[in-house]
Amino acid sequence: MRAGILDAAARLLLAEGMGSFTIERVAELAGASKMTIYKWWPSKGALALDGYFTTVEATLAFPDTGDLEADLTAQLVAFVGLLTGTSAGRVIAELIGQAQTDPELAAAYRHRYSSPRRELAVERLRRSQDSGQLRHDVDLQVVVDQLWGACYHRLLLPDQPLTEQFARDLVHNLMHGLLTPP
Amino acid sequence: MRAGILDAAARLLLAEGMGSFTIERVAELAGASKMTIYKWWPSKGALALDGYFTTVEATLAFPDTGDLEADLTAQLVAFVGLLTGTSAGRVIAELIGQAQTDPELAAAYRHRYSSPRRELAVERLRRSQDSGQLRHDVDLQVVVDQLWGACYHRLLLPDQPLTEQFARDLVHNLMHGLLTPP
Repeated sequence: MRAGILDAAARLLLAEGMGSFTIERVAELAGASKMTIYKWWPSKGALALDGYFTTVEATLAFPDTGDLEADLTAQLVAFVGLLTGTSAGRVIAELIGQAQTDPELAAAYRHRYSSPRRELAVERLRRSQDSGQLRHDVDLQVVVDQLWGACYHRLLLPDQPLTEQFARDLVHNLMHGLLTPP
Repeated sequence: MRAGILDAAARLLLAEGMGSFTIERVAELAGASKMTIYKWWPSKGALALDGYFTTVEATLAFPDTGDLEADLTAQLVAFVGLLTGTSAGRVIAELIGQAQTDPELAAAYRHRYSSPRRELAVERLRRSQDSGQLRHDVDLQVVVDQLWGACYHRLLLPDQPLTEQFARDLVHNLMHGLLTPP
């Protein structure tokens, strides 16, 4: 039942955005009662974001082949593909936009989506730090902003396009650094 | 007259945000006629963003001492200070948020603020590329997203704090790379 509700929530969110997202419509789509939904989720924002998290989890999985650069590139290319090739980009941009003036939605976004996604990224990076591939003095949370955060920046302020080449450049720049070798 | 209007626009924007920003109030504050303002600016978004651009220009200037790393760090520390130590952070977050569902505001933001700001950053970076400090194969637009874009990411999705140390880490990570030297 819980999986069915999450799936219905994600489908509704991605099809129509947050504008027409209601607990009532998710209940209808999932064949569940509103009471059941409220038992698990305190607000429609929490439900929408849990549904979204679950739906994109497989696409955004972090491979671990032992080659960090290839793994990060593959994951970021998949992330950019999700943002540009499906309705997820527009929907997420509107959610983040609305969250700027809606503290409850902002908290739901943080607790149900962005914080756990950051944690998954940091876990993958930490394995490469433990194995010695990544320098030990690097704050891995900062790396999250320089890879995935850079993609959100182009999503929200589209001065420049979100492309596969952009995803590749992000990883290459950050792994190898920009300075000309001495 | 033009400078007075821009100054009044920025003051109103930073004091009260976009919610109560009107051409009428800027006209009143600046002692100008609405007609004069409309001669120069097609919309209140355009006026607000031109005012903001002009007001923060000095704070966000790009130093050029010849030491790229020190110069970028100084500029980013000033940028983080602006976002966290003044009302600019909240105001700009709300503007970007509103732009997600307001195409006219999004276009004004792009043309009056983010595109020219990106261009200033790229110009500074290009001088270091021309002098050989930065690798020649680096796409400088990508660097903008990995430094300033990373700050906007923490501004809009505050899972982690925007601090001076964050600004320093952004530059250090990107200049030197994350991989352990062989």
